[in-house]
Amino acid sequence: MDFHTRKWVKPEDLNPNGSLFGGSLLRWIDEESAIYAILQLDNPRVVTKYMSEINFVSSAGLGDMVELGLSVAAFGRTSLTLRCEVRNLVTRKSILTVERIVYVNLDEHGRPTPHGKQGRAGEGEGDDA
Amino acid sequence: MDFHTRKWVKPEDLNPNGSLFGGSLLRWIDEESAIYAILQLDNPRVVTKYMSEINFVSSAGLGDMVELGLSVAAFGRTSLTLRCEVRNLVTRKSILTVERIVYVNLDEHGRPTPHGKQGRAGEGEGDDA
Amino acid sequence: MDFHTRKWVKPEDLNPNGSLFGGSLLRWIDEESAIYAILQLDNPRVVTKYMSEINFVSSAGLGDMVELGLSVAAFGRTSLTLRCEVRNLVTRKSILTVERIVYVNLDEHGRPTPHGKQGRAGEGEGDDA
Amino acid sequence: MDFHTRKWVKPEDLNPNGSLFGGSLLRWIDEESAIYAILQLDNPRVVTKYMSEINFVSSAGLGDMVELGLSVAAFGRTSLTLRCEVRNLVTRKSILTVERIVYVNLDEHGRPTPHGKQGRAGEGEGDDA
Amino acid sequence: MDFHTRKWVKPEDLNPNGSLFGGSLLRWIDEESAIYAILQLDNPRVVTKYMSEINFVSSAGLGDMVELGLSVAAFGRTSLTLRCEVRNLVTRKSILTVERIVYVNLDEHGRPTPHGKQGRAGEGEGDDA
Amino acid sequence: MDFHTRKWVKPEDLNPNGSLFGGSLLRWIDEESAIYAILQLDNPRVVTKYMSEINFVSSAGLGDMVELGLSVAAFGRTSLTLRCEVRNLVTRKSILTVERIVYVNLDEHGRPTPHGKQGRAGEGEGDDA
Repeated sequence: MDFHTRKWVKPEDLNPNGSLFGGSLLRWIDEESAIYAILQLDNPRVVTKYMSEINFVSSAGLGDMVELGLSVAAFGRTSLTLRCEVRNLVTRKSILTVERIVYVNLDEHGRPTPHGKQGRAGEGEGDDA
Repeated sequence: MDFHTRKWVKPEDLNPNGSLFGGSLLRWIDEESAIYAILQLDNPRVVTKYMSEINFVSSAGLGDMVELGLSVAAFGRTSLTLRCEVRNLVTRKSILTVERIVYVNLDEHGRPTPHGKQGRAGEGEGDDA
Repeated sequence: MDFHTRKWVKPEDLNPNGSLFGGSLLRWIDEESAIYAILQLDNPRVVTKYMSEINFVSSAGLGDMVELGLSVAAFGRTSLTLRCEVRNLVTRKSILTVERIVYVNLDEHGRPTPHGKQGRAGEGEGDDA
Repeated sequence: MDFHTRKWVKPEDLNPNGSLFGGSLLRWIDEESAIYAILQLDNPRVVTKYMSEINFVSSAGLGDMVELGLSVAAFGRTSLTLRCEVRNLVTRKSILTVERIVYVNLDEHGRPTPHGKQGRAGEGEGDDA
Repeated sequence: MDFHTRKWVKPEDLNPNGSLFGGSLLRWIDEESAIYAILQLDNPRVVTKYMSEINFVSSAGLGDMVELGLSVAAFGRTSLTLRCEVRNLVTRKSILTVERIVYVNLDEHGRPTPHGKQGRAGEGEGDDA
Repeated sequence: MDFHTRKWVKPEDLNPNGSLFGGSLLRWIDEESAIYAILQLDNPRVVTKYMSEINFVSSAGLGDMVELGLSVAAFGRTSLTLRCEVRNLVTRKSILTVERIVYVNLDEHGRPTPHGKQGRAGEGEGDDA
């Protein structure tokens, strides 16, 4: 799993209970995974089609630093499935995981189109949204 | 399903492809469902524990108006499970659905505690995160 | 009066004194009333022309939940006048009221144009900005 | 009238019709007038009590530069009434005016308290919210 | 030096240590100096080319009011060099200074072009980025 | 140089000329370098003291992906000097560089205090703000 983007939890990211607002977290994941998908597919026209269940394992508070990790779970014919984990940058404690985020590769008319990329052995049979 | 909050898609909600940024959408859902859970449980100390899979059925663009709907899926002993749908306010076309968003009821020390609320027949056997 | 959109007061909505920032409140009202006007006039090209006086009756703090209510005050020939109230979602205590928010219906060239809608008895003689 | 703060209209300030979002404008006014009131009353504990009617005389678009002007309309015993105008920084064309924004001076318990400031001749008889 | 824009430090401007986030400060400077450059050059097509070193002399906290000051340091042939100071609006204590912010004047194709403006004596020999 | 955080340039990051707003860029750098400094010094109480000159080598536009890179330039007794580069994630073209960003290590009273960390050979003679 590739951990790239880091965030420092600021007052604007907190919910009224003083812990990291889930909505901020999901917003960060959406941006990071889109970047990851665009790089993998070498195409800026990608669209999120599906996110599998999300377990909020632990939370974070003001001043915590978190990092977002992604890996390819499967290449489909027109889709790409990513796996995501967010964790505390210092303690490495997991904050949440999303097993599958499915992106679809689009052509210039916004229609799904084969991307021609393929994963390593054992990754070719992924779902095709 | 109760549809309350409405949003007008503004430039700041768009991704670079010009369609509604998934992260904005997820942020809206998180706030709306927290409000709904707090009202149902009559307790501001609630925490999101789990979101089931999300299908991005259709998208939205600049100037579209969307509304967020929620309903109770199940009352557990210390948990509450909600169902969410976001749709276009004018066409009623579904944008996404989340079958289960699980909130846990906390006491003043941040520990899960029974909420004493119960749903209608057929809703009592929900999962208890 | 129709109460739809709800807000959860977050740290980013507070002024330095720790109470709800009036500017956040006014921003919420502007978005909600625009949506309401667009739906009533069945036309996305509307523009705010006038807001009557605003009484800030009470305030709100971190974690409070508020709801925004709107109703039609009058249909003019090219205008629509709305009434707005913001109140605490739990206590129903009024936070502010705006007696008249006037929207003008525009054609595709940005000029005022009759909207052909009419209110119930007693609402036809509204002001026409 | 003192014109201080300037804003450059950016994409995040636009409504979906491409003109300056009224909510952004109102948010700017609220911050600027609070600063002005705090300076006049030499007290950071002030609260907006009332805004008189707002005429949206003209609009602004992407890249326009606007400036916010304020002056004291009247000193009351515990209140301060300001007048506000927002105009285009280049053309000086008025965008909106608010004749009266009333602030109340609070003590450390949040109760209205005399501020002991007074205006020039003809300003002493202002309303006291 | 002309001090125009004022800011009230709000929760959303704080870093997790509770002091003014340097990034907010730099964002404010960038907007204010762009406005200043556009006015001086009478051309909205300007681009920041260079900022000299920044000394963070003191900080600011929640509720502090700051003001941004700018002056012309030098007119080049196609460039304009500004000087910037941010200070506490009440105490006048300096928060930071930037000796030189260089803007380049662009034509409609985005290429540097002479602006034909000139400063007072002793300002003509500025650097031309 | 360690490249971690990535950003996708969204409408909210653009200036009115349609290119990446310098203020957004500086805000990103400030957050990323603070995280880097905290990790290096193993202390969340750090404060930016100085940034050396910034050359805006090239710009970025809507949909571009950029990455932020940092490295340690020098360890002082109570300070840490970082070097920063922002570049296009795909083309690797440099967008800006900042040769020195100096952080100071603070104790619990907010006073500069030795951090006891040291760099590799050739890095010990850094400036001490």
